[in-house]
Amino acid sequence: MKLTISRNELNEAVQHVSKAVAARTTIPILSGIKIDAVEHGVTLTASDTDISIQSFIPTEMQDRRIVTVHRGGSVVLPAKFFVEIIRKLPNEEVLLEVGERFQTSITSGAIDIQLVGLDPEEFPILPILEEDRVFSISGDQLKSMIRQTVFAVTTNESTPILTGVLWSLQDGVFKFVATDRHRLATCSIRSDVGEELKFSNVVISGKTLGELSKIIPDQDELVDIVVADNQVLFKLGNVLFYTRMLDGTFPDTTRIIPTSFRTELILSTKALSEAIDRAYLLSREEKTNIVRLSTTESGGIEISSSSSELGRVQEQLTVTELKGDPLRIAFNSKYMLDVLKVVDSEKLFIGFTGAMSPIIIKPEQEDSLHLILPYRTTN
Amino acid sequence: MKLTISRNELNEAVQHVSKAVAARTTIPILSGIKIDAVEHGVTLTASDTDISIQSFIPTEMQDRRIVTVHRGGSVVLPAKFFVEIIRKLPNEEVLLEVGERFQTSITSGAIDIQLVGLDPEEFPILPILEEDRVFSISGDQLKSMIRQTVFAVTTNESTPILTGVLWSLQDGVFKFVATDRHRLATCSIRSDVGEELKFSNVVISGKTLGELSKIIPDQDELVDIVVADNQVLFKLGNVLFYTRMLDGTFPDTTRIIPTSFRTELILSTKALSEAIDRAYLLSREEKTNIVRLSTTESGGIEISSSSSELGRVQEQLTVTELKGDPLRIAFNSKYMLDVLKVVDSEKLFIGFTGAMSPIIIKPEQEDSLHLILPYRTTN
Repeated sequence: MKLTISRNELNEAVQHVSKAVAARTTIPILSGIKIDAVEHGVTLTASDTDISIQSFIPTEMQDRRIVTVHRGGSVVLPAKFFVEIIRKLPNEEVLLEVGERFQTSITSGAIDIQLVGLDPEEFPILPILEEDRVFSISGDQLKSMIRQTVFAVTTNESTPILTGVLWSLQDGVFKFVATDRHRLATCSIRSDVGEELKFSNVVISGKTLGELSKIIPDQDELVDIVVADNQVLFKLGNVLFYTRMLDGTFPDTTRIIPTSFRTELILSTKALSEAIDRAYLLSREEKTNIVRLSTTESGGIEISSSSSELGRVQEQLTVTELKGDPLRIAFNSKYMLDVLKVVDSEKLFIGFTGAMSPIIIKPEQEDSLHLILPYRTTN
Repeated sequence: MKLTISRNELNEAVQHVSKAVAARTTIPILSGIKIDAVEHGVTLTASDTDISIQSFIPTEMQDRRIVTVHRGGSVVLPAKFFVEIIRKLPNEEVLLEVGERFQTSITSGAIDIQLVGLDPEEFPILPILEEDRVFSISGDQLKSMIRQTVFAVTTNESTPILTGVLWSLQDGVFKFVATDRHRLATCSIRSDVGEELKFSNVVISGKTLGELSKIIPDQDELVDIVVADNQVLFKLGNVLFYTRMLDGTFPDTTRIIPTSFRTELILSTKALSEAIDRAYLLSREEKTNIVRLSTTESGGIEISSSSSELGRVQEQLTVTELKGDPLRIAFNSKYMLDVLKVVDSEKLFIGFTGAMSPIIIKPEQEDSLHLILPYRTTN
């Protein structure tokens, strides 16, 4: 293998695939990045066997020469060092040449690097997926749906299925659900795929979705999603992102979401967020994060928290609308703040069905819905 | 105590003194901030007994009313919560009132906070220093001198005196020295104090200087420095910063700095810094951080490093000037990068007296000097 390549494009591709390099592995080949050079371009691949990322660099882009392949071939280079040195090369052009026993030289200006390469034959082969269930969604929408839900997955490995986000596509509605049994986040959009395309119980690790989110470009481009038997593939321009689905059955959560309420509230997202943040400061010291919300006689609400050691915080909030029964409820303020952080709309709806029943939070004009279980307190 | 105070000024003062609050302490009063209100203003104080910071808020600033003291008095409030809640209050004005048993209410708009206060009589009393050794230096110069030297203190608590920076004032020259026995950093400026004002062996903890640096304002104001028996006081406008000196005698380092060289080099700070950074990437994997510098036959230098597992990096650099004997020397690249990070001048001088002798680095037009001991390697 011998090729000349533009540093900027090489660097971008290397940064993308680096997210799939196994951080701690006993299999040396997985700590590397595979480079394949053929006549029409260079492909970089990294895989920790759960996720795999592949980035293709074509020989030309917008009439500009990016890669010249003098001799085709493959090699695996140690990722950690390779990723950083490519980022720190000052010159525009890099010459890569693989010699005997995968010894690789990287030359750029007055810099000469000799790297011990590994045999590309040992590198895992990416699966070939059946492409009969494929649909497209805008990158911005996908990022937003991930952001609206991923914070609610559990970090507790004893229920592995809940470390993931449930995806389903039914009657043209594409939906995400995440829950850690104390709270639940859902988000859905209407997709323009035909009704014959559907799937359910596709569960993708929250951590993986976090990584995917980072490499979805900021420009609003379409992402193609291929749903195969136990893998999902995302096509983002020249980047392919493969992930395994999580094994197991995601619990049915549809029945725990109340549809009618005894107390309904519409208020400013920012005002509520700031008030709960202040009450949280005190509740945090108690390690419980418990904050109370009560309706007041004047038709507003009061947010409060108390600590036996420090004292208490109490704050009156005016609301846009308050309907139904008077209420006094306690909840984990951290969970509420997590929700308020992802709500982009100026106002939101909160529905209650009593002090012991789920709290429902719905942003105005957004297709997301959040549920938080209250604390059962006696005072 | 009862007072109305502008939130912004209160917040600024609270943030300043918070840096002296004891982070982990078994003495509850030290985790608090003391507030004293008298007719002409409010004083905040925090102390972890090693450093103490006091900030005074006058009743008026530039004809604007800042504080109205309705009733004088004192209280100590729990710092961690107080610091954050003051930062997060939305309103312009805050009412503070101390009731029975130091119960304190903080009111701002619709927010009502009740805090358990502590008895101010239990709070440590700040020392009264003899002000016969006082001099002034610009805040920018003081910050720069701290930055040029503080990174070279040791983090090894077995030699406590070397965790500090040595200060001396002799013949009108104000000088800092820091060393961890492997490297040394010095910086000095000519001060306009009279020659009769002098001191030596004033050693101030590197960590304390880091905190001091943070509260020196960015505007180029004068800092008054009071050097007393075992304390140093810094006066920064309305803020007083007290610190204890470290006990012990700082080693004499004057004799280890060579004054004549066998090889002399002048080159671009940026080019050297980037080349060593690349070589460091590889040496880091070997955990040694060893990088080599050699003069080349073409009158330049070569920077290189190698790792038995990964390979090697080798880079040619042109220099502005190279005088004296050919040289091949190895050093800890992390130490060199630490120096290069604080050098602001475009070019620098490096002097060598052989492969086993100290390396001297001097920025152009700066009164600082850095020394690094080389590694004794056989190859």
